[in-house]
Amino acid sequence: MNTKNIIATAIAAVAISGCATHATNPLEGPLTIAKQGSFFVGGRDVQSETLSTLPAYLPSGKVTVDQVYVHYQIPAVPAGKPITLIHGCCLTGKTWETTPDGRMGWDEYFLRKGYPVYVIDQAWRGRSAANITAINAVKMGKEAPDKLLTVFAAGHEGAWAIFRFGAKHPEVFPGMQFPLEAQGEFWKQMVPDFLQALPTPNPTVPALSELAKKLNGTILMSHSQSGIFPFQTAALDTAGIAGIVSIEPGACPSATGDLKPYAGLPILVLFGDYVDLSTRWAPRLKACREFVQAANLAGGKAELVVLPDLGIKGNSHMLMHDRNSLEVAAWLDSWILRNVR
Amino acid sequence: MNTKNIIATAIAAVAISGCATHATNPLEGPLTIAKQGSFFVGGRDVQSETLSTLPAYLPSGKVTVDQVYVHYQIPAVPAGKPITLIHGCCLTGKTWETTPDGRMGWDEYFLRKGYPVYVIDQAWRGRSAANITAINAVKMGKEAPDKLLTVFAAGHEGAWAIFRFGAKHPEVFPGMQFPLEAQGEFWKQMVPDFLQALPTPNPTVPALSELAKKLNGTILMSHSQSGIFPFQTAALDTAGIAGIVSIEPGACPSATGDLKPYAGLPILVLFGDYVDLSTRWAPRLKACREFVQAANLAGGKAELVVLPDLGIKGNSHMLMHDRNSLEVAAWLDSWILRNVR
Repeated sequence: MNTKNIIATAIAAVAISGCATHATNPLEGPLTIAKQGSFFVGGRDVQSETLSTLPAYLPSGKVTVDQVYVHYQIPAVPAGKPITLIHGCCLTGKTWETTPDGRMGWDEYFLRKGYPVYVIDQAWRGRSAANITAINAVKMGKEAPDKLLTVFAAGHEGAWAIFRFGAKHPEVFPGMQFPLEAQGEFWKQMVPDFLQALPTPNPTVPALSELAKKLNGTILMSHSQSGIFPFQTAALDTAGIAGIVSIEPGACPSATGDLKPYAGLPILVLFGDYVDLSTRWAPRLKACREFVQAANLAGGKAELVVLPDLGIKGNSHMLMHDRNSLEVAAWLDSWILRNVR
Repeated sequence: MNTKNIIATAIAAVAISGCATHATNPLEGPLTIAKQGSFFVGGRDVQSETLSTLPAYLPSGKVTVDQVYVHYQIPAVPAGKPITLIHGCCLTGKTWETTPDGRMGWDEYFLRKGYPVYVIDQAWRGRSAANITAINAVKMGKEAPDKLLTVFAAGHEGAWAIFRFGAKHPEVFPGMQFPLEAQGEFWKQMVPDFLQALPTPNPTVPALSELAKKLNGTILMSHSQSGIFPFQTAALDTAGIAGIVSIEPGACPSATGDLKPYAGLPILVLFGDYVDLSTRWAPRLKACREFVQAANLAGGKAELVVLPDLGIKGNSHMLMHDRNSLEVAAWLDSWILRNVR
């Protein structure tokens, strides 16, 4: 029986048990939701004299910034801890929805598997407001141009290598599973990123802590630039954090830093394929291995998995969009079932 | 039919027959969805030399901008044309979701009434990328500060009067129905707005036309700054537009302009309460009355409704958040049933 057949059998089994017990929605057919909606966590009011250069809007006043948008869906019969999905650089919560080639996203996959799912937009991105008053301060001549906010847009060519579609644009790694025929739809997901204008930790981190406490137990699943956020959240306060799944993190905590916050927390760090072929990613994988080893020596329950070691091959940095995205998600589901109470 | 297909079909049949006596989901209890997801419409690639001022991201490359994010949900048993919800100034698609005080948003209301619901983020806002290259051109010294993009943030105090919570901050109109006790959550919805940096029509307009054609018939429901968008979309091409519901539009088309695009289209322009008390809104209502009259003389099927004339009182500019938001939505549902085939 090959992998595909095993998965098909597993899906059929889940579908049958889902039908009998209503514990989960099967992966096809109607989806039954107990409750859905959206709200914000975090945020602070700031007073500014440079809100606007337009007559119709006052330059002076108060705005609210640093909040984090959260959209959620709770399945009819929840069968697991809530999963909070945290996107990476130059992207928004859209990351986790429908793949660029139109297949089911991980948001719906985990929902159908019985998890309440919470999808955020990081502070200053997507539906979470940026503070643009420093731009208008320059436009009004109150500040010099070098005081402009640092903002960047990742171009397609540079992003190609960062996302490990190939060593460099437009080369493609052999067997690479990102659906490149739909790359146009993927580039539309990318947004400008103010992350370098923000303090460390990013305001998203305390907002995640607020969310974790509100949910009274959630798995923080992060990706890439946000890979470190669940660890930073745990360092603030472990309350409400049921586990950490960090997918292709841009950084792990230092192996020589304070590892106490991670003791006892189920932690998974996951990487895809071709990592050793990337000068950007290979050192990050190495540093994460060192962190996981050190965390376990300090009483942790951390695990680092590189998918090819499991026989799952061809994954780019955008695992949740790859052709085998649901195979990866199914493995994550099984990891969570084994490791998170 | 293989076993998996038989099971999936059986589950689907059970799920659908479970609500066979209801064409729609009731307003309480589990929600059954046939399909949900997200995609983009519109968008174009631009080449830039000022994408980034950071060493980690190349300044030169291609990015995609002007696209419009669309999130959709289709009920198990659709019972109406799709509704496309288009938010207004300084806001995102969040407008239509959970109200600031935690009640059901219009996105879910119309879904439960049987409409497929499509919620967008306007171009350059929310999950739809802005083009920030002009900001970096100034930061790099390639352009003068006055070439900076026009962007503004509406402050709480100014927005107070624009949203007609009262004549001016912090006064409150008597009987006003916006849930002010939850204003903190509402301010978090507001985002900076680049709309003044965009051409007319806004790139959202051709994107809406693409969406309307894709859906082969949708009601374009707009609000405030986007109030004019459905009309501008119809002026481009009426294909796929089943009707227009323009809620408190910032502007209606000119009564003396070309009215041919609107002939035969079911059109509703809706206003809330206290309009005559607002120097900003009273002239807009007057101009919309003139447009509706002229459109009808030119063979149109347009209607202008001011809610207090129906006995529905106290509505602010944010009708979809007001305490009686579902009463207003129910009236809109009945208007659509009467007017849109």
